[in-house]
Amino acid sequence: MAKIEPRIFKGTRDFLPDEMMHREEIQNVMRTVFQKYGFEPIETPAIEYLNVLTGKYGEDADRLIYRLNYKTGTKDEAALHYDLTVPFSRVIAMNKELPKPFKRYQIQPVWRADSPQPNQGRFREFYQCDIDAVGSKSMMVDAEIICIVNEILTLLGFKGFLIKVNNRKILNGLVAYIGLDTSWTGEICRNIDKLDKISFDEVAKELTEKNVPSAVIDKLKTVVSEGKISLDDAEALLKGIPVGEEGVNEMKELFSYLNSMNIPKENFIFEISLARGLDYYTGPIFETTLPQHPHIGSLTGGGRYDELIGHFSGIDTPAVGTSLGLDRILSAMKQLGMLDKAQTRTKVLVTAFSKETMLDSLRVASMLRESGINTEIFHEPVKLKSQFSYADKKGIRYVAILGEDEIKNGTITIKDMQTREQKEMANDEIIKWLNC
Amino acid sequence: MAKIEPRIFKGTRDFLPDEMMHREEIQNVMRTVFQKYGFEPIETPAIEYLNVLTGKYGEDADRLIYRLNYKTGTKDEAALHYDLTVPFSRVIAMNKELPKPFKRYQIQPVWRADSPQPNQGRFREFYQCDIDAVGSKSMMVDAEIICIVNEILTLLGFKGFLIKVNNRKILNGLVAYIGLDTSWTGEICRNIDKLDKISFDEVAKELTEKNVPSAVIDKLKTVVSEGKISLDDAEALLKGIPVGEEGVNEMKELFSYLNSMNIPKENFIFEISLARGLDYYTGPIFETTLPQHPHIGSLTGGGRYDELIGHFSGIDTPAVGTSLGLDRILSAMKQLGMLDKAQTRTKVLVTAFSKETMLDSLRVASMLRESGINTEIFHEPVKLKSQFSYADKKGIRYVAILGEDEIKNGTITIKDMQTREQKEMANDEIIKWLNC
Repeated sequence: MAKIEPRIFKGTRDFLPDEMMHREEIQNVMRTVFQKYGFEPIETPAIEYLNVLTGKYGEDADRLIYRLNYKTGTKDEAALHYDLTVPFSRVIAMNKELPKPFKRYQIQPVWRADSPQPNQGRFREFYQCDIDAVGSKSMMVDAEIICIVNEILTLLGFKGFLIKVNNRKILNGLVAYIGLDTSWTGEICRNIDKLDKISFDEVAKELTEKNVPSAVIDKLKTVVSEGKISLDDAEALLKGIPVGEEGVNEMKELFSYLNSMNIPKENFIFEISLARGLDYYTGPIFETTLPQHPHIGSLTGGGRYDELIGHFSGIDTPAVGTSLGLDRILSAMKQLGMLDKAQTRTKVLVTAFSKETMLDSLRVASMLRESGINTEIFHEPVKLKSQFSYADKKGIRYVAILGEDEIKNGTITIKDMQTREQKEMANDEIIKWLNC
Repeated sequence: MAKIEPRIFKGTRDFLPDEMMHREEIQNVMRTVFQKYGFEPIETPAIEYLNVLTGKYGEDADRLIYRLNYKTGTKDEAALHYDLTVPFSRVIAMNKELPKPFKRYQIQPVWRADSPQPNQGRFREFYQCDIDAVGSKSMMVDAEIICIVNEILTLLGFKGFLIKVNNRKILNGLVAYIGLDTSWTGEICRNIDKLDKISFDEVAKELTEKNVPSAVIDKLKTVVSEGKISLDDAEALLKGIPVGEEGVNEMKELFSYLNSMNIPKENFIFEISLARGLDYYTGPIFETTLPQHPHIGSLTGGGRYDELIGHFSGIDTPAVGTSLGLDRILSAMKQLGMLDKAQTRTKVLVTAFSKETMLDSLRVASMLRESGINTEIFHEPVKLKSQFSYADKKGIRYVAILGEDEIKNGTITIKDMQTREQKEMANDEIIKWLNC
């Protein structure tokens, strides 16, 4: 074997123990809350046939799908999944026997052939933690998903987050109101969505270039530029436009549930400029941001997609879900100083004194482990100083020293690496002492 | 969107909740044991540059690496990782500051462009659960890894498993002893391995066809004809062949540790015919099988690879590890009837009586969840019978019925779906009762 330069694929990351321990802990919080609401785990393969994935997200997203070098150009061409929602929809279509409502969580990486921007938390491989409920049109389900987002972010210690809620039907109504047909919804949404980054004049210019009449642009301007549009404003605006009225009624029902759910009022809001990028949404949509930290981007995003599963199964199957971005959440927690340095899970390091005493060290390590104490044994009889230094570097609190004297006396010397105090104890005392 | 046939990529699987709950539980057992021995989690990306992966496993394995359709033919060509050992070696080479010995666990899927054989548990995407320790040549590390394998399989309930242990140096010594060069090691091992099924004459015939001189074959015959080769036999045989003597000494040290480690004697054995397929092994190798169930294949496999990391870093860095095959282990547990049907984690289903009482149902569900009781709420006021049937299908034990009477009386009726008994209780009684 020739020497090979060790390089990591651009836009991806290795997670070393400090980072991984935080990632495991956040996932554990999520799993616990998901299960509290009756959601059950599933997983789907990373590889899907390409035509299962394309044509659901929109053209921009389709371009970001990683393709394998596998039967290229045939119907069996394969790719890495872009999100967990489309694969989940395929699963539902292929497993019609699953009892409905079917509620699942799914925690897996997804891949996007994007220009990575690590500083903005944009990577080519990142984790999504999804919950989705299938088989109910009730706004109760949407409310419950928002409630879970609120509970997880609260448990993780976030303060001042805001779950913005809108409805694609309201957006469709809005597009009709300004005088365009629904084929324009995506375009209008994408432009409304940009308004927190660019001015309306720039949006107007872009729409003009796309031959949108100036009367329409003016009407859009009055809608989005008079400050915050409340749900009541939207109701007045959309009166007489059936799809818009339907959207408003859904929102009223959804907010009535949210208001009964012990979610602090300041944690959620109706936000008409929320559009969400993906094509497959049909009803309520939601997204969580930290308004005081706009550079952090959205922590969660989701919505209702009542038609997606039908494209696979031919059967009308309503569904709603959200994705929690593990990487965004962790990055936000780091930036906001919410994370302590990860603690090693090892409580004791047993030293290796000499080749001859290794079996005694092994015996002590086994004894500690059998008592449920996470224990490492140093593998080679090097200088004690080096072994202490290893314990320090890993942050292991206690070192069990086992030299010839201790072995002769049937004792162990315990050194507390924090206080630097040492104490010699009988073998049977040590477990009681460590468990205190 | 046109209707699309929902198809799953050949050789991959969806894991539905019953299966996933088992998978999560097995992973939890593994993580607990890994941490008990001081191993810490890491993860690496699924995508690696192709030249990081190739040239380490051997030609057969290299052909099974899934390539992406990405910068094909350049040095940036990319692929999906084939195992977790080579990516881990890259991580060690890129993070020289990690304190040594560095011990990590890593639980992730790997991909192989193989002909899938689902009945034999061979898939294109499957999970490996790896532990590796870097920075020590001590046989203590190898012993500890075997000890962890023993502990996990025992905790999972396996009986009669056998951890076979051999050493690449002994195999190299043996091949030298009979008068061949090391390129013959694989061939000779495969033939020794067959001797419990076929006679030596058949082996001799095959070797003759491959132009192995008859003097060599005769020498091999004297080696294997006295039945099972013990470590003592190997020692006598390899005297004077340096690489063989080194291997024997390593094995003697390794077995002395294993014998001090509370591992039942019948769980591990020296097995000179064990070879392991991958090129990168250099010292002890190990593999776990169920001798009473030969069709199940190996549950774990690993060994020492003291040279692999050096190919990335240029620095001599000893390492040893093993992979536990989650899919093989789970498949074995199913075949051997070791798994009960997975139980839902939801304890209570709160019914939906009418549109008007939904907020009351919500209130009760919130109350139960706040007391730590995993609770689902039925989302739509359909017939109670359908809601009971949902609870039955999901295996939810208790249904909390909240009708107009209960709401008026400030009570809840609890139905035990197992005994079919019902009981009306005050709101504040129910939590105490459910927690009993």
